[in-house]
Amino acid sequence: MKALIISADHFEDTELLFPFYRLQEEGWEVDIASIAKGKINGKHGYEVSVNRALRDINPNEYDALILPGGKAPATLRKERAAIEIAQDFFRRNKLVAAICHGPQILVTADVLTGRRATCYRSVAEELKESGALYEDSEVVVDGNLVTSRQPSDLPAFMREVVSQLGKASQ
Amino acid sequence: MKALIISADHFEDTELLFPFYRLQEEGWEVDIASIAKGKINGKHGYEVSVNRALRDINPNEYDALILPGGKAPATLRKERAAIEIAQDFFRRNKLVAAICHGPQILVTADVLTGRRATCYRSVAEELKESGALYEDSEVVVDGNLVTSRQPSDLPAFMREVVSQLGKASQ
Repeated sequence: MKALIISADHFEDTELLFPFYRLQEEGWEVDIASIAKGKINGKHGYEVSVNRALRDINPNEYDALILPGGKAPATLRKERAAIEIAQDFFRRNKLVAAICHGPQILVTADVLTGRRATCYRSVAEELKESGALYEDSEVVVDGNLVTSRQPSDLPAFMREVVSQLGKASQ
Repeated sequence: MKALIISADHFEDTELLFPFYRLQEEGWEVDIASIAKGKINGKHGYEVSVNRALRDINPNEYDALILPGGKAPATLRKERAAIEIAQDFFRRNKLVAAICHGPQILVTADVLTGRRATCYRSVAEELKESGALYEDSEVVVDGNLVTSRQPSDLPAFMREVVSQLGKASQ
């Protein structure tokens, strides 16, 4: 099984690193994609290796898409490749897990109409405007979509991500 | 089930936060103890709430002890309460998981004689001098003791911690 994390500079460090380590713990392969290969740096200074450029991603290679928060999603929502990757995962009903500001990418991708979801509180208004049914909960699961609000939700977020991936692989 | 994390200022942020979130994901209760109640700050600036003072800890309340790295263990090894807590876990053969500089506390506690273990490379010499059988591996499990070298070992570290705790609770 293989997951794709999409991020950029100023990511929220634990929201990228916790899923990155957690899925490896499960034995998954995890690629990190950004605007270019190389390195990206989190808000707290963690440096992460980017092994794939967004424009080179073939979504068919992956079973799950993870969208961490921080300021990275504000950058990524302007990247056509990032938006098209997110849309492809929704079209194929494959797991998309977004936390904090991560759902901003899904707002731009216009895939949230009628979907139950959550996000960081400052993102809630644009989530609702995009047609999502916003809930203020530590984790919301609606079909292929798993969303959470903030770093302290990471235990619930990854509990559901791992649970959903277990069901998908059966 | 209930785990105790012992740390102090200048902890390695992911080595504290990954186990903290990961055990909560499993449904565990996790206390964080330090020299005093309040807040401690990681090397990367994460602030963590300390809900217990070391001197007030009753080790009988806990099923596992987690020792993250960073510069915190150099502070903690001077704290008699921290050393006595570690010794108590060993006496009762309860799980002790230490990563990076975390094993420095176990060196001072003098509990490693003849035990297979690993640690951050700069700690390896004092680990050997304390009688441990040092191995340069991502994770080493020897009875109740689980050790790892660095943040990139966190997937293997927590895979073994969760596996050992699962066996212990059966």
